[in-house]
Amino acid sequence: MNATQPRVVIVGGGFGGLFATRELAGAPLSVTLIDKRNYHLFRPMLYQVAAGLLSADQIAGPLRSILKGQKNVEVLLDEVSGIDTEKRLVHLKEHVVPYDFLVLATGIQYNYFGHEDWRRTAPGLESLDDADLIRGKILLAFERAEEIAALEQADTEKTRQLLTFVLVGGGTVGVEMASTLAEMSRMALAHDFRHIDPRSAGILLYEAAPRLLPTFPEMLSAKAQHHLESLGVKVYTGTRVSKVDAAGIVANGERVLAGTVLWSAGVLASPAGRWLGAAMDKSGKIIVNSDLSVPGHAEIFAIGDTAHVVARARNLLGMKTKEPMVMPGVAQPAIQEGKYVAGLIRRRVEGQRPPAPFWYLDKGDLAIVGRTYALADLRFLRFTGFSAWIIWAAVHIYFLIGFANRFFVILQWGIAFLTKRRQVRVFPGEENPAKAA
Amino acid sequence: MNATQPRVVIVGGGFGGLFATRELAGAPLSVTLIDKRNYHLFRPMLYQVAAGLLSADQIAGPLRSILKGQKNVEVLLDEVSGIDTEKRLVHLKEHVVPYDFLVLATGIQYNYFGHEDWRRTAPGLESLDDADLIRGKILLAFERAEEIAALEQADTEKTRQLLTFVLVGGGTVGVEMASTLAEMSRMALAHDFRHIDPRSAGILLYEAAPRLLPTFPEMLSAKAQHHLESLGVKVYTGTRVSKVDAAGIVANGERVLAGTVLWSAGVLASPAGRWLGAAMDKSGKIIVNSDLSVPGHAEIFAIGDTAHVVARARNLLGMKTKEPMVMPGVAQPAIQEGKYVAGLIRRRVEGQRPPAPFWYLDKGDLAIVGRTYALADLRFLRFTGFSAWIIWAAVHIYFLIGFANRFFVILQWGIAFLTKRRQVRVFPGEENPAKAA
Repeated sequence: MNATQPRVVIVGGGFGGLFATRELAGAPLSVTLIDKRNYHLFRPMLYQVAAGLLSADQIAGPLRSILKGQKNVEVLLDEVSGIDTEKRLVHLKEHVVPYDFLVLATGIQYNYFGHEDWRRTAPGLESLDDADLIRGKILLAFERAEEIAALEQADTEKTRQLLTFVLVGGGTVGVEMASTLAEMSRMALAHDFRHIDPRSAGILLYEAAPRLLPTFPEMLSAKAQHHLESLGVKVYTGTRVSKVDAAGIVANGERVLAGTVLWSAGVLASPAGRWLGAAMDKSGKIIVNSDLSVPGHAEIFAIGDTAHVVARARNLLGMKTKEPMVMPGVAQPAIQEGKYVAGLIRRRVEGQRPPAPFWYLDKGDLAIVGRTYALADLRFLRFTGFSAWIIWAAVHIYFLIGFANRFFVILQWGIAFLTKRRQVRVFPGEENPAKAA
Repeated sequence: MNATQPRVVIVGGGFGGLFATRELAGAPLSVTLIDKRNYHLFRPMLYQVAAGLLSADQIAGPLRSILKGQKNVEVLLDEVSGIDTEKRLVHLKEHVVPYDFLVLATGIQYNYFGHEDWRRTAPGLESLDDADLIRGKILLAFERAEEIAALEQADTEKTRQLLTFVLVGGGTVGVEMASTLAEMSRMALAHDFRHIDPRSAGILLYEAAPRLLPTFPEMLSAKAQHHLESLGVKVYTGTRVSKVDAAGIVANGERVLAGTVLWSAGVLASPAGRWLGAAMDKSGKIIVNSDLSVPGHAEIFAIGDTAHVVARARNLLGMKTKEPMVMPGVAQPAIQEGKYVAGLIRRRVEGQRPPAPFWYLDKGDLAIVGRTYALADLRFLRFTGFSAWIIWAAVHIYFLIGFANRFFVILQWGIAFLTKRRQVRVFPGEENPAKAA
């Protein structure tokens, strides 16, 4: 680290923060990357850890080791508690870090719409811990049902409830989890039990909007729903969940008994906007300028899910959108914004002219709906099924950042695919129920 | 399950319980295996999970899936709270399970010698959770030291303390952990940090007995100590640790500042002896008859670390020991006792004559002291170094029970070996410190 060089502090090691950091390699700057976790997480495949198809280390790489070769970067494991924009200081738990440029890439959480107590009962899939917790919850439900069926022959209602899994939220994560749960219970676990039939498990997917995957074209939403139903998932669209408790949920006023409830509805940005006192949209994202800087702070940038970005876009064929669009909450905008901001900072330090406003290369959307079934919307082309799944798998494996792990993921994936079995099915016995309680 | 057949209840899915269960395959019996965790753990390699060399699922297999093909077995995930020997009932948290035969294979814990509060500060390596916790603690110590070195340039004493790791207990686990910590800090982590040098970490190993590995011949203990010292570990034998707290330890009356303290001293048997009101040795193991039954209960057996077993032994060349020996707390006696008890129950159910008293095939002891250095004591032959390591690796990989995982372990191991790097280095960011606190 060179103390005389301008210092860029990047908060958050997700897609936006990591790509911004990498883009600054070799620049005459000292870069400090701060994250409260020691790893970069490939979130698009986190549901596979929750499902026991991959292990945590296969989709997460230590930030420190990813960035080990980039000499102008230091990594700090800490949590930001606030920002002093006047003195240009980032406040950590017990320390302060000065900055000349600040990049906020602090991401989102699921939105429990004011019911924070639901978070414990119905966890969302955000971190590796959540994935472990959710895998534990799912497997434990089968274990409890088996025990009750073995030792209390009479009580079928209780096992019925334990074998009912509710997913709240019909976005990509809800759809992924629903199909994976269907396949776990229909295939991987099918023959492991003596007293229950995992294939009889009920998997219920609730979405308040009129259709699943609302960010996709209607035709693809319909195909996704149809495919989920063919896997045995019951889909309830236009249905609002108004209560979550130990017994299950209340949906459209009706009580649904369930042993496991998982949450993937709504998004809520990190408190970065409040740290700055900046203008935010209704989900708490900072409304940024066209160069992604925070209004009033030319040296502070917000990217990825921390920012509300409206930008022009082109698709892979170079066709422009007529109107500027709001950036969706997926990896691509975060990556492109991270690179853009890094380039901008670099130009400014080197005394070059500022770049043109950010524009988005819209490569399209992919969603996986089953073991070999996906949706692809490349904007100029839409297709579903195995061909879309091939694209999905290729893109996701390519982007897995921990290079050492890529080979193992492909291997383990291939084996799980061929054998229809899960490799990773252990969960902590005593500890998890306590965590979940 | 056949309700009219005699029911064997086996408590504990470790080596003893699992091999007893498997040995009962095809017998005219209903077998119920109860464990508080859903997995069989290959404990001899658990330290590799703590060190980040393997991931949890590579050394643990779900009991349910290991036993899926054995039709006379059901697996229950629950914790035993007591035993009613009169009514022949095993009490679980909320249920009871009747038995005709009962096999107790409930294992051990480390012994904190009455200081249960030390358990949180100085965790022992017993379960997958412990391995995750310990990996998190170790990596977090390096992270904290890096942050302090980056942001409080003056304070070298604090980083010194954070980079001091104390291991209490010089048995096989303590020796394994010491050598692995030495290699982590000297190799895997050596170049990941900007402000600290992980190679300067202090690794201190304390043993109250006059030498390391007290169950091995003196000559091998001396070689182990010599090899550890060559790796940079400081070994203190004949040194009793009298206090553990947030600042470190007190050893032979002297304060030693350390950021991380790990425990592997002493053993304490599970409460199985108290459930029965049976006669126990000083570490709480049930003193059993020569057929491993519990005195006064011909239908109850204790095996592995639950039992104090004195038996005659033969080595691999068939040479008998002069005197009966007390079974050591390793995998082999547990496995052989499990098989013996299963055979005895089988004979009794089939109306055959009882077998001869249990005798032990003493294959010897192995201990790993470094990445390519081990000790082997085959009783008729003793050797150390790379040749012993080859034996160690072969035996351990062979015995890994989750067959699907074996290939991955070899592969990942091979890669880690060649690259001198750890694959598995992520740890939960916020949650672990809280757990450890």
